[in-house]
Amino acid sequence: MVKTIEWVNGKVIMLDQSRLPLEVSFIECSDYRKVAEGIRELWIRGAPAIGIAAAMGIALGAQEIKADNFTDFMRELGPVFNEVLSTRPTAVNIKWAVERIKSLLIQRREESIDRLKALLIEEAKKILEEDIEVNKAIGRWGAEFIKDGDTILTHCNAGALATGGYGTATAPMLVAKEEGKRIQVIADETRPVLQGARLTAWELMQEGIPVTLITDNTAGALMKRGEIDLVIVGTDRTARNGDVANKIGTYTLAVLCKEHKVPFYVAAPLSSIDFSITSGEFIPIEERGPEEVTCIFAKYRIAPDGVNVRNIAFDVTPHKYVTAIITEKGAFIPGDLKKLMKKDVNLERLRVRPYFKS
Amino acid sequence: MVKTIEWVNGKVIMLDQSRLPLEVSFIECSDYRKVAEGIRELWIRGAPAIGIAAAMGIALGAQEIKADNFTDFMRELGPVFNEVLSTRPTAVNIKWAVERIKSLLIQRREESIDRLKALLIEEAKKILEEDIEVNKAIGRWGAEFIKDGDTILTHCNAGALATGGYGTATAPMLVAKEEGKRIQVIADETRPVLQGARLTAWELMQEGIPVTLITDNTAGALMKRGEIDLVIVGTDRTARNGDVANKIGTYTLAVLCKEHKVPFYVAAPLSSIDFSITSGEFIPIEERGPEEVTCIFAKYRIAPDGVNVRNIAFDVTPHKYVTAIITEKGAFIPGDLKKLMKKDVNLERLRVRPYFKS
Repeated sequence: MVKTIEWVNGKVIMLDQSRLPLEVSFIECSDYRKVAEGIRELWIRGAPAIGIAAAMGIALGAQEIKADNFTDFMRELGPVFNEVLSTRPTAVNIKWAVERIKSLLIQRREESIDRLKALLIEEAKKILEEDIEVNKAIGRWGAEFIKDGDTILTHCNAGALATGGYGTATAPMLVAKEEGKRIQVIADETRPVLQGARLTAWELMQEGIPVTLITDNTAGALMKRGEIDLVIVGTDRTARNGDVANKIGTYTLAVLCKEHKVPFYVAAPLSSIDFSITSGEFIPIEERGPEEVTCIFAKYRIAPDGVNVRNIAFDVTPHKYVTAIITEKGAFIPGDLKKLMKKDVNLERLRVRPYFKS
Repeated sequence: MVKTIEWVNGKVIMLDQSRLPLEVSFIECSDYRKVAEGIRELWIRGAPAIGIAAAMGIALGAQEIKADNFTDFMRELGPVFNEVLSTRPTAVNIKWAVERIKSLLIQRREESIDRLKALLIEEAKKILEEDIEVNKAIGRWGAEFIKDGDTILTHCNAGALATGGYGTATAPMLVAKEEGKRIQVIADETRPVLQGARLTAWELMQEGIPVTLITDNTAGALMKRGEIDLVIVGTDRTARNGDVANKIGTYTLAVLCKEHKVPFYVAAPLSSIDFSITSGEFIPIEERGPEEVTCIFAKYRIAPDGVNVRNIAFDVTPHKYVTAIITEKGAFIPGDLKKLMKKDVNLERLRVRPYFKS
């Protein structure tokens, strides 16, 4: 499996996803600003992956700091935190990674600065490893909803490339395949950045899962023909009430699912659920420049010079459209997410399981 | 206004729309096979425009025929009819043009072959001129549904470029503007061939109508935000029951309109209504090769080599999603279309008019 991001000999190595599938090339970052640039410029993308990148970027930034006491060390880390936090507003994973690192540092404030620097590297690596474990668990819970012979539609890329490995939306597909179910996947190309065409189709071909590429316009026609059994997408941030922010076009798919009675699942590691916000209306939605729409690969112009463009990068799917949210702890109806905040929750009673025998 | 197609000095001149907006270049056809190639390769597209192209192609083909009697003339025209009919299966306008020409020839069978050849040229020019008049009438009926300040979403290109001039879906916008209404248009880019980005945006910029380009994925989010007041699209073929075949993605828009209570209008010259078929399920739907999806402009690859692709060029929107069908005779609810077949129909009683004062 291709690794999206790795910590190697004191450097962050990231696969330049913006060049896929034409070119498999890696970028070596020895400066946290380079990591931030990578997140901003979409060399690396996908909510869990940019959480990992943020943690590694912070670890990298920490190594440069010359402070000799905790207060100075934290003050000098401030700009590093701010730099990574400023890259992408919608995904919660960067914020989650920053908070996790801050609370680790505060907890271990008595340690030497050298030890703290080492701890940050360990923590970043641990976030990556945990992510893979989380995804495998999402895969096991999610695969229960996939029957032998099913056709699964997915949007954007919530695959191995969007994570430390295994993917979120793709994990149930991989597990279903391991279980011997014959599945096929329909990948929306996902304009404007074409993550479906460039990344999901490529990834699933590598995994040997039959995949068919369609334009985003085609999903409705296929649902009307009864050719889609279920939809699984990822999320950049899900609110406590189950409202799901994800790549633009996700909401349209959810509306189509409602119209055609196709189940709509969201694969969401708990790190992507923002329990601090009550609904999707509080999720900041990134709008990006016009070039992604007017030019392909920032090179090939496909629209008139000077045309006005709205490039909204994400949309929010209200929880009423979501059949279940699949986390590493199980699949839940959106309305039950908030119950996961309680320490004594009985997960087994809360989980939703498919009505059919898988 | 740029002319999509013209008959000049015994030749057919067509604007090569596949190069727009990067290049405004014209192709000179002195052979009907070249015209057919132009239809197949999308140098010219749009249901009314390819009807005109078919008529001009047939007129061109007729000039080469050496027959000296009507029976031989018609036999030699057979391959010409077949060649133009074989180019695009979904749009009814080619079939409509062929039938109109055949019945003209049969009616005028006593004329000399030279006169018939001249008649075919006159008829092709007449089809073009009538098309412009029809579109202006569609514009007048359709503009009634547009209020001052409205934002109108459209898909693909049903503009001047898709017709002899003025457009079908764009005609109500042009008339609304002439009436002094301040409108703005949102143009879906319309993957895979990007007619919205390349043609509609370009055309409306030329007309001085404020236009904003979005990816197809963005329409749902804008509707949810309440930013779209109405949708107007064209059609390649509409069945007698009001089921509408149009560019892939139209059906998705119609579902989104239903979900958001946004009116969904179809601008359809009577020539695009196929009264011979009872419902949309009998409309043949063209599937095209994978290259339009995997490559931009047949040049820039955006998907992995060898990926499986479904490239369905059109979809059918069932009549229940259609608020009204706007023809040159007025706007009608889809269920009333079949009544237009009756000779003594009272159009004024059948027409739908907006509830608001425009």
